Amino acid sequence: MATVFILNGPNLNLLGQREPHLYGHETLDDIEAMCRDHAVDLDLEIDLRQSNHEGVLIDWVHEARRLADGLICNFGAYSHTSIALHDALKACDLPVIEVHLSNIHARETFRHASYTAQAAQGMIAGLGPTGYRLALTALADLIDA
Amino acid sequence: MATVFILNGPNLNLLGQREPHLYGHETLDDIEAMCRDHAVDLDLEIDLRQSNHEGVLIDWVHEARRLADGLICNFGAYSHTSIALHDALKACDLPVIEVHLSNIHARETFRHASYTAQAAQGMIAGLGPTGYRLALTALADLIDA
Amino acid sequence: MATVFILNGPNLNLLGQREPHLYGHETLDDIEAMCRDHAVDLDLEIDLRQSNHEGVLIDWVHEARRLADGLICNFGAYSHTSIALHDALKACDLPVIEVHLSNIHARETFRHASYTAQAAQGMIAGLGPTGYRLALTALADLIDA
Amino acid sequence: MATVFILNGPNLNLLGQREPHLYGHETLDDIEAMCRDHAVDLDLEIDLRQSNHEGVLIDWVHEARRLADGLICNFGAYSHTSIALHDALKACDLPVIEVHLSNIHARETFRHASYTAQAAQGMIAGLGPTGYRLALTALADLIDA
Amino acid sequence: MATVFILNGPNLNLLGQREPHLYGHETLDDIEAMCRDHAVDLDLEIDLRQSNHEGVLIDWVHEARRLADGLICNFGAYSHTSIALHDALKACDLPVIEVHLSNIHARETFRHASYTAQAAQGMIAGLGPTGYRLALTALADLIDA
Amino acid sequence: MATVFILNGPNLNLLGQREPHLYGHETLDDIEAMCRDHAVDLDLEIDLRQSNHEGVLIDWVHEARRLADGLICNFGAYSHTSIALHDALKACDLPVIEVHLSNIHARETFRHASYTAQAAQGMIAGLGPTGYRLALTALADLIDA
Amino acid sequence: MATVFILNGPNLNLLGQREPHLYGHETLDDIEAMCRDHAVDLDLEIDLRQSNHEGVLIDWVHEARRLADGLICNFGAYSHTSIALHDALKACDLPVIEVHLSNIHARETFRHASYTAQAAQGMIAGLGPTGYRLALTALADLIDA
Amino acid sequence: MATVFILNGPNLNLLGQREPHLYGHETLDDIEAMCRDHAVDLDLEIDLRQSNHEGVLIDWVHEARRLADGLICNFGAYSHTSIALHDALKACDLPVIEVHLSNIHARETFRHASYTAQAAQGMIAGLGPTGYRLALTALADLIDA
Amino acid sequence: MATVFILNGPNLNLLGQREPHLYGHETLDDIEAMCRDHAVDLDLEIDLRQSNHEGVLIDWVHEARRLADGLICNFGAYSHTSIALHDALKACDLPVIEVHLSNIHARETFRHASYTAQAAQGMIAGLGPTGYRLALTALADLIDA
Amino acid sequence: MATVFILNGPNLNLLGQREPHLYGHETLDDIEAMCRDHAVDLDLEIDLRQSNHEGVLIDWVHEARRLADGLICNFGAYSHTSIALHDALKACDLPVIEVHLSNIHARETFRHASYTAQAAQGMIAGLGPTGYRLALTALADLIDA
Amino acid sequence: MATVFILNGPNLNLLGQREPHLYGHETLDDIEAMCRDHAVDLDLEIDLRQSNHEGVLIDWVHEARRLADGLICNFGAYSHTSIALHDALKACDLPVIEVHLSNIHARETFRHASYTAQAAQGMIAGLGPTGYRLALTALADLIDA
Amino acid sequence: MATVFILNGPNLNLLGQREPHLYGHETLDDIEAMCRDHAVDLDLEIDLRQSNHEGVLIDWVHEARRLADGLICNFGAYSHTSIALHDALKACDLPVIEVHLSNIHARETFRHASYTAQAAQGMIAGLGPTGYRLALTALADLIDA
Repeated sequence: MATVFILNGPNLNLLGQREPHLYGHETLDDIEAMCRDHAVDLDLEIDLRQSNHEGVLIDWVHEARRLADGLICNFGAYSHTSIALHDALKACDLPVIEVHLSNIHARETFRHASYTAQAAQGMIAGLGPTGYRLALTALADLIDA
Repeated sequence: MATVFILNGPNLNLLGQREPHLYGHETLDDIEAMCRDHAVDLDLEIDLRQSNHEGVLIDWVHEARRLADGLICNFGAYSHTSIALHDALKACDLPVIEVHLSNIHARETFRHASYTAQAAQGMIAGLGPTGYRLALTALADLIDA
Repeated sequence: MATVFILNGPNLNLLGQREPHLYGHETLDDIEAMCRDHAVDLDLEIDLRQSNHEGVLIDWVHEARRLADGLICNFGAYSHTSIALHDALKACDLPVIEVHLSNIHARETFRHASYTAQAAQGMIAGLGPTGYRLALTALADLIDA
Repeated sequence: MATVFILNGPNLNLLGQREPHLYGHETLDDIEAMCRDHAVDLDLEIDLRQSNHEGVLIDWVHEARRLADGLICNFGAYSHTSIALHDALKACDLPVIEVHLSNIHARETFRHASYTAQAAQGMIAGLGPTGYRLALTALADLIDA
Repeated sequence: MATVFILNGPNLNLLGQREPHLYGHETLDDIEAMCRDHAVDLDLEIDLRQSNHEGVLIDWVHEARRLADGLICNFGAYSHTSIALHDALKACDLPVIEVHLSNIHARETFRHASYTAQAAQGMIAGLGPTGYRLALTALADLIDA
Repeated sequence: MATVFILNGPNLNLLGQREPHLYGHETLDDIEAMCRDHAVDLDLEIDLRQSNHEGVLIDWVHEARRLADGLICNFGAYSHTSIALHDALKACDLPVIEVHLSNIHARETFRHASYTAQAAQGMIAGLGPTGYRLALTALADLIDA
Repeated sequence: MATVFILNGPNLNLLGQREPHLYGHETLDDIEAMCRDHAVDLDLEIDLRQSNHEGVLIDWVHEARRLADGLICNFGAYSHTSIALHDALKACDLPVIEVHLSNIHARETFRHASYTAQAAQGMIAGLGPTGYRLALTALADLIDA
Repeated sequence: MATVFILNGPNLNLLGQREPHLYGHETLDDIEAMCRDHAVDLDLEIDLRQSNHEGVLIDWVHEARRLADGLICNFGAYSHTSIALHDALKACDLPVIEVHLSNIHARETFRHASYTAQAAQGMIAGLGPTGYRLALTALADLIDA
Repeated sequence: MATVFILNGPNLNLLGQREPHLYGHETLDDIEAMCRDHAVDLDLEIDLRQSNHEGVLIDWVHEARRLADGLICNFGAYSHTSIALHDALKACDLPVIEVHLSNIHARETFRHASYTAQAAQGMIAGLGPTGYRLALTALADLIDA
Repeated sequence: MATVFILNGPNLNLLGQREPHLYGHETLDDIEAMCRDHAVDLDLEIDLRQSNHEGVLIDWVHEARRLADGLICNFGAYSHTSIALHDALKACDLPVIEVHLSNIHARETFRHASYTAQAAQGMIAGLGPTGYRLALTALADLIDA
Repeated sequence: MATVFILNGPNLNLLGQREPHLYGHETLDDIEAMCRDHAVDLDLEIDLRQSNHEGVLIDWVHEARRLADGLICNFGAYSHTSIALHDALKACDLPVIEVHLSNIHARETFRHASYTAQAAQGMIAGLGPTGYRLALTALADLIDA
Repeated sequence: MATVFILNGPNLNLLGQREPHLYGHETLDDIEAMCRDHAVDLDLEIDLRQSNHEGVLIDWVHEARRLADGLICNFGAYSHTSIALHDALKACDLPVIEVHLSNIHARETFRHASYTAQAAQGMIAGLGPTGYRLALTALADLIDA
C-alpha cells in the first residue's frame, strides 16, 4: 500500500482556534480524521505531521524521499519565504501537491508568491480542509500513473 | 438539481494538440465527458463552454449570475491580464473555483499573478484535467453549504 | 444638432445590481434617461451603448470618429489595461471625456492608472451617475468652442 | 444657505499668466466670478482662497471642518506629495471634490498619483475652469443628499 | 503554392487616416495590394485580414495552424498586452514574423515589450509598409527551408 | 532644570476629534497635561507646540538646538515626506525621540518609511498618548547620560 | 498577578559582547534583572526567554496565547523576514509590543520593514535596554485597560 | 543694472554651524558678502534671502518673475521633494541656476533626483560656497545673452 | 552611387563558430558576400566592418556621418548598454536600421531593451543573416526617398 | 593547532544523491574526508557539521566565536534569506569564507544575492567540492596573517 | 605651474555639429581656446583631450594621477554607465570636477544618474561651454587649498 | 603543457597604489610572479595580461578560444556592465573562473551582480591575490578532467 506524507507548517497546530474567519473551525485533528477516512477509500496510508520548525519540515521532506510515495504539503507562511524547503522538494522524485486553506491570491501581496509551489506538481488553495481531501484524490492518481 | 457553468478561455479549444508536454493529450471534449460523468455522481448539471473572446466570457459570467449555482473557470491567459473578468466575478454571489491545467507558479513570471483568482473562492493548478474533477467535487460541497 | 456617443464598457450592464456600495443603485437605463433629459437642455443628441467586448468598443470609437461630435466613455476595467482603446481614442479628433462612477484613486492600485484617460481631454471620477451629466455639460462647451 | 470652500494651492495665483498652453488664459479671479455666479443658481455661498503654503491650506481644511458644508480643492502640485493634506481631508466629514485644470494623467508620471484624491469623494481633471463649475454642481447635490 | 496569413490587429483599419506622422499615408488596402504583387514574385498566396477583436485574432491564428504555411502578424497594441495571443502563436508550428509600422522602441515605454514577439521567429519594426514586404521575403525563405 | 521641546506636526491639533478609532479620544491638551505631570516627576521642563506648517516646525527644531536639552517629535505625515526636517534634526546634537500615536507599520505602505526617524535616536509607535510619556522617561535618561 | 512573556530572538544571547557600538554593553541577564525589578513595581510577573530558533519562538508565542497576559518581543533579524512569526502573533489576542535595541530605520534598508511589527500593537526602537522597561510600563497599562 | 535673486531654502540659515564636514565653515552671511563683492564686478545687484518655509520660497519665486533678471536657487532638501517649487520655476521666464553646496550625487539616494533642477537651466553641486560665485558668473552671461 | 556602412559590434567576428543554435552557421564573410551581391542589384556600395571596441564603433558612426548615405548596424551586446552609441546615432542625419540575428525579445530580459534602436529608424530581429539583406532593401528605399 | 569550523546548511546532507547535474556525485562524507586530508597538510584541525535548522546553524556560529580560529560556511539556501545568520557572522571576529557548490550567479535570480556573504571575507562559488579545499587553503593564510 | 587635464568622452568631437539645440554651436576647439585663455589668468596649464574609447579615457585618468594637479572631466554618456571610470577616478587623489554641457536632470531618465559624479568633488551641468570655464575657476581654488 | 590566460580589466594596472584598504598592497606584477611560481607546481603555462579597454579584453577572450586551455578573468568593473564580455565568454568552450580581489557582495549594490560570472564556471571573491592562486589550482583540476 502506498504511503503519503502530509506535512503541515507553522501555526497550523492552532487550526480551529486561530482567525476562524480565515481558516475555519475545523482543527488539524479533524483534518487528519477526514484524510484518514478518505485514504482508506483510496487505498493509501497517510502520515500527517505538523511542526513550527523549518528545519524539522526539511528533515521530514528528506524522510519522505526514502519512505513515502507522495507528498502533500501545507508549509503555511514558510511557502512564501523558504528557498530551503523549495530545494528540499526539488531533491524529491515524488509527486508533491501544495495545499493552502485560504486563497493566498486574495490576501496580502507577500502571500501571492510561493517558493515551494514552484517545486511542486500543483497547488490547491482557498478550499479549506476540503483541499486536503482533493489533494489526496489527485495524489492517488499520480502515484498510480 | 444544481447547475455548474464550466467556462474555458483562450486556446483551450486546442487542448490535446497544443504543447502536450505542458497541457497533456486530453482534449476539451474528453474533459467535458469526464466532468459530465462526475457530475452525475455529484447530482449536478454542467454547462461547459469555451471561447477565445474575453467579451464572450464576461457575458457568460453574467449569464451564470442568473442561471448557475456555481462556477468553474479556466480563463487561461486572460486570468493574468483581465481586470474586467475579475470585476465580472466580483459581481457574482456564486462560489467560484479557478482551474489551471499547468502549474502557473512554476512557469514564466507573467503567469504567477491571477486577477481572476483574486475574485474566486479558491484555485486548483497544475493537476491537469483532474483539476476540473476536483473543482466539481469541491463546488458540490460549497453549493450544499 | 451635435451628437454625443456615450460608450460604456464591461460589467456596466449590471449597474444597479452589482456591488451597490461601490456603484450605487441606479441602472444604466436610469443613466441613459437622465442623460437624454439633460441632452435636450443642451441641445445635443446622444447615443448610449454598452458592450463587454473590447473589440466592439474599439469599433464604436471608430464609428464615433465619423458620426459623432463628442465622446463620453466609461470603459470600466478596460481603462486600466487597454492600449488598443488608447490608440483608438488617439485616432479621434473629437473632444473625449472619461467618466468613472467610483473614485479609482481610492481603490486597488491596479485601478489608479488609466491608459484611456491619457488619450482623453479630461476625466470625472467618483461622482456616480452625476459624472455623466457633468461630462455632457462640459462636452457641450467643448463642441461649441 | 450652505457654504462651500474652494481652496487653491501653489502657483494658482499665477493663473492666466503661467504656461497658458497648459492652464488657459483665465485668471483665478475669473474663476471666482464664474463660481460666484453659478453658486447663486445653486443657492450656495462660496469662499474661494489661494495659498502657496501647505500649512495654510491644512489650516483652511480644518476651518472648513467647522464652517463649511462642502469642499472643492485644487491643491496643485501638493496633491502629488502631501500626505498631510490627505490626512486633513480624512479628518473631515464633508463631501470633497478635487479639481485639476489640466489632465494629470496625460502629463509627467509624477503627476499621475494624487494623495489628496484618495481622501476625496471624486475628481474632475482636464476640463479647465469648467471643472470648478461642475464640481459646484455636483457638490450641491451631495450637500442636499 | 504556399499560403501566408497576414493578420492585422486593432486600429489598423484606420491606416492612412490615423496619426499619419506616426503611421504614414498608405491604407491597409494599399498594403494588401503591395503584398499581393510581391507574393506573386515569391510564388505565395496571401490572405490579409484585420480585426479590432482580440478573440477574432486568436481564432484566426488557430485557423492559420491548419491552413497556412506561414504567418505575418501586426497585432498593434495587443502585442504589448495579450498573453492569450502569445499562447496562440506558441501553439503554432508555423514560421511567424511580427511587423510594426512604427519603431516601438522609440515610443512610450509601454510599447517596448511585446508578448507576441516572444513567440515569433523575428520582428521588423519602424519601416512602415515596407516591413510587410520584407516579412514576406523572409517568410518565403523560411517556408522553403 | 533641563528643558524638552515636544513638537507636534500637521493635524495633531485635531486630536480627539479626528478618526478616534485610529488616534484615540484624548486631545493634545490632555497629552500636554499628562506630559507636564510626568515632567515634574522627572525634573524636566517641557515646551509643547503644534503647527501644521513644515517651515514652522523646522524653525522650532532650530530653536531647540539653542534652547532645549532634548527633543520629542511627532511630525505626523511630514515624517514620511520631509527631507528638510530630517536635515534639521541632523543639525542638532540633542537626543531626539520620534513618537507616533498609531502603529505606522500596520497602516498604508506610504507610512512605513520615516525620514525623520532616520535622524532620531529612536522611535515609539502605536502606543497612543502613552508614547509621549515613555519618550519623556527615556529622554530623561539620555539627558542625564 | 498578570504575566508577561519577553521573547528574544537570534543573537540576543550575545548581547554585551556583540558589536557594542550598535547594541551597547549590557547583557541579556542585565536586561532581565532590570525588567524583573521594574515588574515588581508594576505588579507583573515576567518570563524572559531567548532562542536562536524561529520554530522555538513560534512555539513560545503559542504558549503565550494560553499562559500570558501580554507579550514583549524582540525577534531581532527574524522581524524582517518571518511571516510565520507574524502569523503566530496574529493568532494571539494579547497586547504585543515589539522592541528593538537599535534604531532599525537608521540602518540597512533590509532592516526598515518589520513583518512582526505589523502584527503588534506598537514598537519601540533605538532606545537600547530602556526600550524593554518602557514596553513593560506600556504593557501594564494595556493589560489593565 | 540687472538684479539677481539668490533664494536659499531650509536649514541654510545654520550654515557654518551644521555638519561642517559636509557644508563647510562659512556662514550664509559670508556667502552673501562674497556674492555682493562678486556682483559689483559683474555689474549686478543681488537680493539674497533664506527661508525654511516652502510657501515663502514659492512666493519669492513669484516675486522674482516680476522683479528679477535672473535667479540662483539653493532650495536644499526641498529640491528633492517639491513639485510645487518646480512648477513655480516653470512659470518663470528667467534664467535659473540651481546650486548645492555638497555633491548630491555622492550622498543618500534620496538626494540624487532634483525636481527643481529639472526646471532650471543648469546646476552646480559639490563646490561649496564657490558654487554661488560661479553661478553668478554664469548668470551674468545668460542675462546679457 | 549611394554608400551604406554596415557596422558590426562585439563577438560578431566569431559568427559561424559561436553558439550556432542561436546565431547560425554562416560567417560574417558569408554575410558580407551576400550583402555585396544584393547591393549590386540595389545599385548601392557597401562598406562592412566589425570591431569589438565600443570606441571604434563610435568613431565609425562619426565617419559614416560624413561619408555614408545610410547605416545598418548590429552593435550586438552594446545595443543594450551603450548610451554613447545611442548618442552617436542621434548625431547622424542618416537613415539607420538596426539588425539582430537572434530574436532579442525571446532571450534574457537584459536583451529586451535597446538604447541604439531608440535612435534608429527601425529594427529587424530574429531573422538571421536574412535580416541584413532585408535591411539593405529597406535602406535603398529610404535613401531614394 | 588552529581549528576551522566547516558549517553546512539545509539539504547538504543529501549531497551526491540530489540533483547531481547541479551538485555533483560526491557526498558530504567525501568532502569531509578530502578536507581532513588537506587540513593535515595545512596543519589545521577541522570540525565539519551539517544541519537543516537555521537556529542550529546560528548556535554553531556562536560556538565558533569561542572555539574556532576560522570558519567555512555553506549555508545553502539560507544564504539568500537569513539576516539572522548574517548577524551571527557579524558578531564573529574570525575570518569567514562562504562556499557554494554551484555558481549561484548563473541560477535563478533569487540565488544571486547572499546576506551571509555580505558578512564574510570572501566567497568561492561554482567549483564543486574543490571550493572547500580552496577555502581551507585561503583560511590557513588568513589565520596565520 | 599647476596642470589640469580636461578629458572629454564620446561624441564630444562632434560638438558644434551635433544636435545644436542641445549642445550649442561652439566646437571643442572653441572650448579649448576659451579654457586656454582663462587658464592664463588663473596661472594654470591645461591639457585638453577627447576620445570615444572608454579604455583610452581610463588610461588618461591614470596618467592624470601621475602628471596632473586637477581634473575636469566630461565623460558624456559614459558618466551614466561606466563603473570602470568611477573606479579610475576613485583611484585618484586629485580634485575632480565633472562638467555636462546639457542639463542632465531635465533629459531622459537614463541620464539622471552619474557613476562618475559619485567619484568627483562636484558637478556643473546645463551651462554649456561656460561650465568648463567655471570648473577651471573652481579647480584653481581647490588646487591652492 | 596546458596554457591558462589570466585576463585583467580596468584599473588593475594600478594595483598596490589604488585604495589599498580595499585592494591590498601587492601589485599586478607581484600577482603575476606568484601565479608563475604556482603554475610551475601545477605544470601549467600562464599568460597574464591587463587592459583598460573593453574591446581589447574581448579580443583576448577570442584569442583564448584558440590558444588557451583555461581562463582566469578579473574584468573588474566591466563584470557588472558588460554583456559583450558575457557573450564573448559564452562563445568559449574553456573552463573559466572569475576572480575579484574584494568581496563584491559587501560593497555598493551596483557591484553585486556580475554578467561575466553568469558565463563562468565559478567565482572567487574577497580573498585578495590569493584568489588568483586558488583559481589556478581549481583550473588545473578542470583542465585535467
